[in-house]
Amino acid sequence: MTENIKTRTIEACFSPALFTHILTKENFIVVIADILRATTAICTAFKNGALEVVPVAKIEETVKYKDIGYMVAGERDGIVIDGADFGNSPFNFTAQNVNEKKIVITTTNGTHTIEAAGSAEIVVLGAFSNLSVLTGWLAQQNKNIVILCSGWKDKFNIEDSLFAGALAQRLLTLGYATNCDSVMASVDLWNIAGTDMLTYIEKASHRHRLKKLGLDDVLEYCFTHDTAEVIPFLKGEALVDVLKNSNLVK
Amino acid sequence: MTENIKTRTIEACFSPALFTHILTKENFIVVIADILRATTAICTAFKNGALEVVPVAKIEETVKYKDIGYMVAGERDGIVIDGADFGNSPFNFTAQNVNEKKIVITTTNGTHTIEAAGSAEIVVLGAFSNLSVLTGWLAQQNKNIVILCSGWKDKFNIEDSLFAGALAQRLLTLGYATNCDSVMASVDLWNIAGTDMLTYIEKASHRHRLKKLGLDDVLEYCFTHDTAEVIPFLKGEALVDVLKNSNLVK
Repeated sequence: MTENIKTRTIEACFSPALFTHILTKENFIVVIADILRATTAICTAFKNGALEVVPVAKIEETVKYKDIGYMVAGERDGIVIDGADFGNSPFNFTAQNVNEKKIVITTTNGTHTIEAAGSAEIVVLGAFSNLSVLTGWLAQQNKNIVILCSGWKDKFNIEDSLFAGALAQRLLTLGYATNCDSVMASVDLWNIAGTDMLTYIEKASHRHRLKKLGLDDVLEYCFTHDTAEVIPFLKGEALVDVLKNSNLVK
Repeated sequence: MTENIKTRTIEACFSPALFTHILTKENFIVVIADILRATTAICTAFKNGALEVVPVAKIEETVKYKDIGYMVAGERDGIVIDGADFGNSPFNFTAQNVNEKKIVITTTNGTHTIEAAGSAEIVVLGAFSNLSVLTGWLAQQNKNIVILCSGWKDKFNIEDSLFAGALAQRLLTLGYATNCDSVMASVDLWNIAGTDMLTYIEKASHRHRLKKLGLDDVLEYCFTHDTAEVIPFLKGEALVDVLKNSNLVK
């Protein structure tokens, strides 16, 4: 396995708007990060027994899923949307709310990123919640890796870039190669921030956006490593946990 | 002046492809950086007496300028293009070559960035070569500032981001405000790299691209501060030195 990894590469992409410019052209897995809060919340959902999570861009799209029995998660500007069962905080995705359930979630940034990555053969979600299990799984796949940060409205953001750095550093240690300046920069940012994420994240604009909305209770949780042994994997329009659906990969 | 600066903001943009997503909407100056090598070369041209530098995207476009007496600077993959007087290395823009001359330069990344910033009212070029004089001039203008990195084929690159960090740090010290994660990250990268740029830049992919092409003799020069007391300023399709054309700004 180690020999194979040495022929594989890592690239990072700081915005969905840059995804069409990636240099990795074939045989790759895209890891999508939207740390505050979509990918963290979806990892939590699978940890707590969700069967399937369908991300949709528009509030109206949740209706057809609700009609066939899906739980609806969604908010806009911190307010739970009409017709939703709960909002997008990871803390809403409790076992009581999601165990054995199918869920539709509307999250503008997150869905936009998944659409941007649509051309890739394999798309999984990453968060600090699943960092170790994701690293191990990626190393087994023998593919190139592109870490795609959701950013904020197509701009670079700190929290997703730090995750890119954390994941890239682990993969580089395993022997992956890189020729990508975004990987180099994100690893350096991670090395500044990693020992005290909660202090560092005070620099992030989205941290202050969440604070204003009263939604910043999730920060510590979103930066805690390895709370969820799951890997959300895009299968058609739905995410499922690939660790419980190992037939999805060769 | 200090009071005015405190109401002004800085934003950084890591790729021309992200420029349409900037949050700064009015009353701003765009500072374009293409450190290896376009903005450094153009600063050198003005330092050595060039009257005007016209950046064009396509080699064919240089012909009409050559016909009216412009010097032509241009290369592709390290080879001086047919019909050009010299290539794009800063070392070509000597007083002997450019003093009192008008120049047309073809540089794919650099021109692409200038086109991307086309909607902005004021566009200037930044490099380590003019860092101090540029900082001082910007502080006199009482406008918001967007630092636009050329990147490499619309991807993030290290050398332009480090320049963004160097300039942003100086402006923040003067009292400008920011709510931009790209500014925060680039300042942190600059603080890692700044004391020894030549070592840090070994991480940059473009540094290795230049080495392969035998064009890396310019590295030390491109990272040296304050070699050129000039500010290339976009006036229509041409760049002129605003310090010698002070009527261009109010």
